[in-house]
Amino acid sequence: MNTYIKPAPVTGPTRLEHDCIGELEVPANVYWGIHTQRAIGNFTVSGLPDSSHPQLVRAYATVKRACAEANEEIGLLPHDKARAIVAACQEIESGKLLDQFPVDVLQGGAGTSTNMNANEVIANRALEIAGHQRGDYHYIHPNDDVNHSQSTNDTYPAACKLALIDAIGPLAEETRKLAQSFHDLADRHADDVTIGRTQLQDAVPMTYGQEFHAFASFLKADTAALERVVPLLMSLNLGATAIGTGICADLRFRKAATEHLARITGLPITAAPDPIAAMTDMSAYIAVSQTAKNLAIHLKKAADDLRLLNSGPHDGFNDLNVPPRQAGSSIMPGKVNPVIPECVDQVCFRVFGMDTTVTWAASEGQLQLNAFDPVIIHELLKGIDLLTNAMVMFRERCVEGITVNKEIGRRYAASSPSISAALNPLIGYERSVDIAKEAAESGRTVREVAGERTDLPAEQLDELLDTTALARRLGQTCRERQA
Amino acid sequence: MNTYIKPAPVTGPTRLEHDCIGELEVPANVYWGIHTQRAIGNFTVSGLPDSSHPQLVRAYATVKRACAEANEEIGLLPHDKARAIVAACQEIESGKLLDQFPVDVLQGGAGTSTNMNANEVIANRALEIAGHQRGDYHYIHPNDDVNHSQSTNDTYPAACKLALIDAIGPLAEETRKLAQSFHDLADRHADDVTIGRTQLQDAVPMTYGQEFHAFASFLKADTAALERVVPLLMSLNLGATAIGTGICADLRFRKAATEHLARITGLPITAAPDPIAAMTDMSAYIAVSQTAKNLAIHLKKAADDLRLLNSGPHDGFNDLNVPPRQAGSSIMPGKVNPVIPECVDQVCFRVFGMDTTVTWAASEGQLQLNAFDPVIIHELLKGIDLLTNAMVMFRERCVEGITVNKEIGRRYAASSPSISAALNPLIGYERSVDIAKEAAESGRTVREVAGERTDLPAEQLDELLDTTALARRLGQTCRERQA
Amino acid sequence: MNTYIKPAPVTGPTRLEHDCIGELEVPANVYWGIHTQRAIGNFTVSGLPDSSHPQLVRAYATVKRACAEANEEIGLLPHDKARAIVAACQEIESGKLLDQFPVDVLQGGAGTSTNMNANEVIANRALEIAGHQRGDYHYIHPNDDVNHSQSTNDTYPAACKLALIDAIGPLAEETRKLAQSFHDLADRHADDVTIGRTQLQDAVPMTYGQEFHAFASFLKADTAALERVVPLLMSLNLGATAIGTGICADLRFRKAATEHLARITGLPITAAPDPIAAMTDMSAYIAVSQTAKNLAIHLKKAADDLRLLNSGPHDGFNDLNVPPRQAGSSIMPGKVNPVIPECVDQVCFRVFGMDTTVTWAASEGQLQLNAFDPVIIHELLKGIDLLTNAMVMFRERCVEGITVNKEIGRRYAASSPSISAALNPLIGYERSVDIAKEAAESGRTVREVAGERTDLPAEQLDELLDTTALARRLGQTCRERQA
Amino acid sequence: MNTYIKPAPVTGPTRLEHDCIGELEVPANVYWGIHTQRAIGNFTVSGLPDSSHPQLVRAYATVKRACAEANEEIGLLPHDKARAIVAACQEIESGKLLDQFPVDVLQGGAGTSTNMNANEVIANRALEIAGHQRGDYHYIHPNDDVNHSQSTNDTYPAACKLALIDAIGPLAEETRKLAQSFHDLADRHADDVTIGRTQLQDAVPMTYGQEFHAFASFLKADTAALERVVPLLMSLNLGATAIGTGICADLRFRKAATEHLARITGLPITAAPDPIAAMTDMSAYIAVSQTAKNLAIHLKKAADDLRLLNSGPHDGFNDLNVPPRQAGSSIMPGKVNPVIPECVDQVCFRVFGMDTTVTWAASEGQLQLNAFDPVIIHELLKGIDLLTNAMVMFRERCVEGITVNKEIGRRYAASSPSISAALNPLIGYERSVDIAKEAAESGRTVREVAGERTDLPAEQLDELLDTTALARRLGQTCRERQA
Repeated sequence: MNTYIKPAPVTGPTRLEHDCIGELEVPANVYWGIHTQRAIGNFTVSGLPDSSHPQLVRAYATVKRACAEANEEIGLLPHDKARAIVAACQEIESGKLLDQFPVDVLQGGAGTSTNMNANEVIANRALEIAGHQRGDYHYIHPNDDVNHSQSTNDTYPAACKLALIDAIGPLAEETRKLAQSFHDLADRHADDVTIGRTQLQDAVPMTYGQEFHAFASFLKADTAALERVVPLLMSLNLGATAIGTGICADLRFRKAATEHLARITGLPITAAPDPIAAMTDMSAYIAVSQTAKNLAIHLKKAADDLRLLNSGPHDGFNDLNVPPRQAGSSIMPGKVNPVIPECVDQVCFRVFGMDTTVTWAASEGQLQLNAFDPVIIHELLKGIDLLTNAMVMFRERCVEGITVNKEIGRRYAASSPSISAALNPLIGYERSVDIAKEAAESGRTVREVAGERTDLPAEQLDELLDTTALARRLGQTCRERQA
Repeated sequence: MNTYIKPAPVTGPTRLEHDCIGELEVPANVYWGIHTQRAIGNFTVSGLPDSSHPQLVRAYATVKRACAEANEEIGLLPHDKARAIVAACQEIESGKLLDQFPVDVLQGGAGTSTNMNANEVIANRALEIAGHQRGDYHYIHPNDDVNHSQSTNDTYPAACKLALIDAIGPLAEETRKLAQSFHDLADRHADDVTIGRTQLQDAVPMTYGQEFHAFASFLKADTAALERVVPLLMSLNLGATAIGTGICADLRFRKAATEHLARITGLPITAAPDPIAAMTDMSAYIAVSQTAKNLAIHLKKAADDLRLLNSGPHDGFNDLNVPPRQAGSSIMPGKVNPVIPECVDQVCFRVFGMDTTVTWAASEGQLQLNAFDPVIIHELLKGIDLLTNAMVMFRERCVEGITVNKEIGRRYAASSPSISAALNPLIGYERSVDIAKEAAESGRTVREVAGERTDLPAEQLDELLDTTALARRLGQTCRERQA
Repeated sequence: MNTYIKPAPVTGPTRLEHDCIGELEVPANVYWGIHTQRAIGNFTVSGLPDSSHPQLVRAYATVKRACAEANEEIGLLPHDKARAIVAACQEIESGKLLDQFPVDVLQGGAGTSTNMNANEVIANRALEIAGHQRGDYHYIHPNDDVNHSQSTNDTYPAACKLALIDAIGPLAEETRKLAQSFHDLADRHADDVTIGRTQLQDAVPMTYGQEFHAFASFLKADTAALERVVPLLMSLNLGATAIGTGICADLRFRKAATEHLARITGLPITAAPDPIAAMTDMSAYIAVSQTAKNLAIHLKKAADDLRLLNSGPHDGFNDLNVPPRQAGSSIMPGKVNPVIPECVDQVCFRVFGMDTTVTWAASEGQLQLNAFDPVIIHELLKGIDLLTNAMVMFRERCVEGITVNKEIGRRYAASSPSISAALNPLIGYERSVDIAKEAAESGRTVREVAGERTDLPAEQLDELLDTTALARRLGQTCRERQA
Repeated sequence: MNTYIKPAPVTGPTRLEHDCIGELEVPANVYWGIHTQRAIGNFTVSGLPDSSHPQLVRAYATVKRACAEANEEIGLLPHDKARAIVAACQEIESGKLLDQFPVDVLQGGAGTSTNMNANEVIANRALEIAGHQRGDYHYIHPNDDVNHSQSTNDTYPAACKLALIDAIGPLAEETRKLAQSFHDLADRHADDVTIGRTQLQDAVPMTYGQEFHAFASFLKADTAALERVVPLLMSLNLGATAIGTGICADLRFRKAATEHLARITGLPITAAPDPIAAMTDMSAYIAVSQTAKNLAIHLKKAADDLRLLNSGPHDGFNDLNVPPRQAGSSIMPGKVNPVIPECVDQVCFRVFGMDTTVTWAASEGQLQLNAFDPVIIHELLKGIDLLTNAMVMFRERCVEGITVNKEIGRRYAASSPSISAALNPLIGYERSVDIAKEAAESGRTVREVAGERTDLPAEQLDELLDTTALARRLGQTCRERQA
């Protein structure tokens, strides 16, 4: 933790830069300039630099590259300068210069410091590439050249949204892989009958396969939901500049920049229809947050169910076994706990907290800007990261190693009084109630009591109530449906 | 409030009914039966009966009607009984018998009491229609006939989702009307220039029209989002019965019931692909909650901005005037407050609370059922209702009566130092800084200072910095975009 | 639900009143006046009138009475008028005129409408008492007399806080009674041994008594916490008037009004040290919300544990039985579910939502006022009400009827491998691990394996591992501690 | 970010250790053992090791030291072993060996891995101190010696609570310093009159001093609240072992360990009255979270008000100036934004998310344990850290440099129509309304209109309405109150 973060004092050789506040010494050996240097000193709360979100740094460089290409195309940036800027952006996109993004992720200013940081690093690197000295802004200027036709308020959200798309990719992929893992587990147990429980009370039989397939179905739906949310992140606002009116930007820039960005990224990026509204509309972030939250709800459901079904070994449900990963107690010998699902649960709680933070920040915009997207993008990237890692862990160290206790499942299925529901269509709900009650009170199975209390032929009773027949029937349905 | 709710003792004539718990007297003059009667006595927390959600009661009757039609079609229910049941359902759908749904909305049992209540009321009314006595369940039985091929766990969510679709209709319509109202307001002020503010600091000019159009754009997006969420509510699970395995239900029932329900409602209803997963998947509710929350975020933004722009009259922004609705103070003479936007804000806070409750309930499912949909559906219907009412109020008593202070807006636009941004492309960011600083420090306008400090021709400066020219240019862009 | 609430048109005889907006007809037969009449027409979102919070209406009358007494004492209100006002207040405090408070609970205006409503009803009733006509405000004026030395911003929070104290009383009492109910249940099972489970895995033995005592301990702590929160509600701000500077209020009024209110209520009410800060400090509401939330967390824990321990009857934990309250399924014969704990859980989710709404409203104050206390007080009173009702229900229809399955508990205690922890001090953790593993793998008890694998005398093993000895020892500890 | 965290493969020399799962190679040069090694491989979600919470690591060593002292005192640990263990603990308490705590902060297992880690590091370091080899557990065993009479479930919460006390110290100190900073600012402006605004509408005059004093009062109350929450963290559960029954722990241990811990820390630590209940009671964490949340609400209020009062410079309130910290725009020349308050706001949103996560984790305990305290303690320490840092930043880079625009405040105060409230006691509310309305409509001051429309002497009007008189009177009250 970073209590009392103090920005390191600037030592060694420096260059002097100035802004509307005054002058400041910047270390000679860095690519950033005065705006970044001030921001380092201003924001000292989380201790996490922007470089901890490499997706964001890369995406910003991509946005700047597209803008440089657009500026050149419409004649606002000479070819040589544009080439130097583009080359500098490409270096950053390839992962270089990441350590040149030192501003705290929880920064005030609506992302201005990150934009300024990008402008400065790109300008200085471009200057080098073009054979000039760092700081020689007469040749390439961070604001007049790198930032030409742009503002923070249009480029920062663009970079944030591209970064989110970048992060959602692995998230969706891990969701898919975990779904597959549950699906494989289900397929291995398509014919193994067990009890279904509603409201934690014995209900009617199902197979382990059906139980695990449900988890797979949840996650498949989440994969689809993640794919549906990505297009919301592709409506960008380049050329809107400060408040959406496009001040300082040539009218052709919006189209050109959007097209270059689409070309570079290979994504069907479009310009938002109402640039004023787009400036303060946080809907896409809310949608990402909700999609992540819904995924977390599904993961929590799976983790909780597994913890419940794994309860025991003697004094619980004991339907199945999650793989032992470590000794569970410093005092109780041999105790092993479901630590992986417990870890998954905690990630879900963290994601629920993320949704709260995002909702707050998204709801506090005022007039022509919401100044709080830095905390939104930080929380979303962090939450996506935690979910992605949690699913790798869940799959590799839990789901793939689950074994089921077939005999216990079969015994449970046979013993549930509610199984008499199968007789409803034949003898009516009220007579079924009597049989269920007698079974429950006597401790016998419904099959046994029904054999005595009804005239139904034994074969029919077996077909309806015997677990072997049930397994066959349920397994067949399950396979057909999943096929 | 309902502290210490006590169920009224049963007085007057009764009929005796029984269930698996034992016997109970039910008032002779009601249509409900023993299961409802027990539930009345059990759940005494909110004091709100199911009948306070008429959409839910009507939708349940619709679901039961579709099931009766399906049962008849596949030969599980004789024609005469089916016709009586259908007729009873239609009465409820038309609004009759609403007072026969007295169970508390915050009920345990995953909706079982509401389903039992529907089964009993429909059975008893159908018995009357068929010329039998109420309670004569040998002819038509609540469980064996009305509930045939069904369970709570498939019909209750179906009814809840239809009820939500029913409630979302007026919500979307009011969203559309409020959007139109903002749009009309915007059109009236398409050429009235004012200042845009970012981070509450003077930024660059825009028109009131652009400002109001943004609110309209938000709400148009919300209307579209509401339309996108409705299909998620059309994937139902009829025929899944208790846990999704379809126990007690003829294999043909799922298709038949889904088709009848689609026909009756005119909605493209489908059967969920994985009935086990569908039993515990709360994604559709989460999606409704998130869509309502995002609408609330937009309403809060509009209400907050209006409160800010209306601040003053002397010591605030005073860009515009929300219509006076009532005296604002018991002590400060003549003070008038923006009470309508303040009321809207509070509805939004309530909706944020709704989202919390729904997230909790949706996340606490266990094994084959989530038992907490009653609180989910209650909160969603309540929240939708509040939002719908709030938008009627907002539109009629605030937005339609807003007037703008054109002269103030124009003065603001002229006085912002940031307007010097318009000079960036001509003289560069750093020289523009100098002009902005001098304007800010001297109290003169950027136009005046730029006239002295640059060689730019007066016509060009006027075109860039004069508010009349700005109004013309911005207004034109705005009209083109909104056309 | 109240979609499209329309205020009823005023029909019948009226009187004409005026305010700073203009004139309006008010029904002749009501006690309220123009300000209330406007508010009825303005706020149409929840459909719940202020009268649905009788504690708030009563408390407001108490506050107004104390102020009238103070005004008289310091010579600002003639004796005759003061007596008439006091008498009118007392009528309201006794429960009369409740229907004269028709304004929507979700009102804008920071409570001004409720204050105006109180001023008007009290003035008009006082006028009658004094032998004048309703509306004859020359004799007693709602603002100049009833509201003398006051504003909404000091009296409304005072009334809200008194209303909360009023509501917390029954909440604390029901918390205490539920604690007692769990305590009694625990005492009945002080010697009945069962298994303790950590992370849902078999751990070491305990008694049912210890398990239930823990619930009682939680609730006792909650009772104490509720008592600790009440004093926070007794720091009031009378005499602060509009923004805390005390404008319009004689300097002696603050002290006099506070003392009269303390005398009337019998509560040690004090004046807040910084009246400006007190005007916007929502800490007391946050504290009430947090205390209610923590109580809900405890109730949820108890409800969830009971649902888990009641799981089965055959295929679950089955440690105990919650009393059957109603048939649990429309399809599964004889199934009975723990509907009361499920209802408790849902109330807890609603209370978590309340905390969200309260946090939002408390966090959105601006400058000299937080305009959102109406939704805060509504939500807090509603949440307290739900919790109070839920605990009555929980106690009467669940906790008091719980029975335990002693034999199952005893068998569980004997079968847990973790019980070998008792051997750690004698043979070390690592040898205990070996014994636990062998017991787990062979299905034998730890007692049996330890008899073979250690040299410890049989008496010592029995003392440590036998459930009868355990029950005796644990029961004794439990009784000593709870004594 | 840590997507796809992979535990580093073990290379170089190793020692072989075993547990109930099997055997594993541990690097020879580390102090941790097999349990830690497994946990490193198991938990790969956040990438943050326990060592990122040095307070927790230090506190755990303190707890272990107290337990070793207690074990020695009651004869369960020989003097030589105890001294070696104590010495090892003291090294960790002094900050050494921090890098030996590598387990992910988001771990499953309810803190078992952290406890095991502490046991292992302490045992191995103690072995060295005693002249033995690392891994020579026959002499000092992590479980049998270091963990003697203990379990994770009693020591981990103890360490967590001590760590929180440790973190709350600097938080309270920074709260106090920020309060002082606002107090100093207030004192400098005790006589500078400005306008108070309610519901963002011009209300009645106050001084800047009163406005700033309110922020100081909030924070003083928060300091007191933090002090009140600390004792809740001092009720610990040592000797309760696995589930609260104290299995494996000598009966004298609870008292001895608690007393040693109190002596070592100098804190009045006590043993919880009901050890079973204490095991799952999360109330103390909820209280810490709520106290931090309420502090965040106050910080947000201050930050939001400052942003509002700083709005402008031309087109906003412009009551005051927060110090310029950096250029505010990449495009708008000379624009400077209130970046420090904006950063504070975002920290508050993060803290609101923390409260959500903590509430979730605290509410999901089951039976004899809540397995989710790792995420609780991580979030609380993180949130406290962010708040502490945010207040340093807020004070140093914003509050201390605020200047007020006295002339603007004075003009605002004079121009508010609501100032006519001062006339209410003299001419009645309704005549004051007329004066206020005329002033508002004519643009004149209330003083001017009142001079014409009333017979009140000019001196009296000046005393009531003139800003110089107001400043004097309000300033005097303010000074008296704050004295």
